[in-house]
Amino acid sequence: MELQQVRAWVREAAAIALGYYNTVEARRKPDRSYVTAADEEIEQLLRQRIKAAYPAHGIVGEEQGQHNVDAEYLWAIDPIDGTGAFVSGLPIWGISIGLLRHGRPILGCFHMPVMDEWYEADVEGPALFNGQPTEVMRDNLLDSESWICTPSNIHRRYTIDYPGKVRSLGSMAAYVSYVARGTAAGALVGQPKLWDVAAGLAVLERAGGEARLLRSREPLDVRPMLSGKSAPEPVVVGSPEAVALLLDRIKLR
Amino acid sequence: MELQQVRAWVREAAAIALGYYNTVEARRKPDRSYVTAADEEIEQLLRQRIKAAYPAHGIVGEEQGQHNVDAEYLWAIDPIDGTGAFVSGLPIWGISIGLLRHGRPILGCFHMPVMDEWYEADVEGPALFNGQPTEVMRDNLLDSESWICTPSNIHRRYTIDYPGKVRSLGSMAAYVSYVARGTAAGALVGQPKLWDVAAGLAVLERAGGEARLLRSREPLDVRPMLSGKSAPEPVVVGSPEAVALLLDRIKLR
Repeated sequence: MELQQVRAWVREAAAIALGYYNTVEARRKPDRSYVTAADEEIEQLLRQRIKAAYPAHGIVGEEQGQHNVDAEYLWAIDPIDGTGAFVSGLPIWGISIGLLRHGRPILGCFHMPVMDEWYEADVEGPALFNGQPTEVMRDNLLDSESWICTPSNIHRRYTIDYPGKVRSLGSMAAYVSYVARGTAAGALVGQPKLWDVAAGLAVLERAGGEARLLRSREPLDVRPMLSGKSAPEPVVVGSPEAVALLLDRIKLR
Repeated sequence: MELQQVRAWVREAAAIALGYYNTVEARRKPDRSYVTAADEEIEQLLRQRIKAAYPAHGIVGEEQGQHNVDAEYLWAIDPIDGTGAFVSGLPIWGISIGLLRHGRPILGCFHMPVMDEWYEADVEGPALFNGQPTEVMRDNLLDSESWICTPSNIHRRYTIDYPGKVRSLGSMAAYVSYVARGTAAGALVGQPKLWDVAAGLAVLERAGGEARLLRSREPLDVRPMLSGKSAPEPVVVGSPEAVALLLDRIKLR
């Protein structure tokens, strides 16, 4: 369970993804068929690598279902998080691998190939952005220049009372990563599946952040999501200070 | 007035910008001082290049004011469009140079260095994305997978009735470029200054798109903006079909 090994797998996956991204056919219009092909090819590769290295571990992924989800160690794979951005030729998408032990995220690696950005953590070290320790933002959370990430349907589903900038960028894993890095003050993440956030949550925790449900305000417990279910409510992430603020300022319509 | 020459200037500018982007000091928190330094260094370079090549031309830029704005040919420079994204370590920002003749955009070059994307046009050729001809989107404008770009303050200033995705990505010039490329269905651009949109408008026109004011629904005329004034209202861009749709679906609060 070495980050270095996971990084090598993700690097292989990134090469596949970049081979599909912004190809001539894909340049102008969204086309789901080629993203599905990219997704499947990447997930298959990552499953093979994990099974070869850790045959007793479970795996759950966006495209190819569940394998041994009751194992002590469970890997959660999102081959391309942010497929909407990917098919639109926008750069904010990435490959996400999280590892859970007894339903708790203990290792995460999220990589955005277009920018060559890496967000990583394991239980031993700090959260890392491109190899450097990083932390969530705790101050200036309501500055006009501060920003939060929200889903691309906020105009329909939510009301937001926030004096800073509200950005919709395309990838849930990127949202959690930007928060862990301390550049976004916080984020609203629709109703994620396990593979959308497993890596991000591992990094977020090591960066001093937390994730709570929008209405109940309870901490997000991913154990009911191990079999592939969505989170029961939208999720808010940030430093504890940011989450407290945002839970008061974001409402479902 | 060759695109090739403008591209060479912009490449020099991009090298300066990348030297400031995601530096160690800048990694975590927005800091306006270093983006101002980058802005000024780039604008100075571009002004020198333009003056050396075309001493009789006018220049207007974000940082360093106006020079000879009544000339037949006027260059409009935005050294870094999307400074909020730039200081936040987000990749969607770029260098924008537009050329106007008698107040009409006739050449544009917008470059996003992190992705190495180029959006260009002159009066003779088609709109180009990375050297390939491109056009605005005319169909599927209201699909759930289609998307529009909006400012990061939409939650405060606008109501939007749009069934697709609404993205806030950080750079007005990028918004107009994504529309010209045909990947975004349309965009709402706050109240731009000339340098925010001069390059984009030249590309947009050659891509078959248009720009109109949100309330009056009149075509955007940039002539009153030559001296550095903002557009009198927010601006909507897209194919004529998309603009007609969006003018009905976006309202100021």
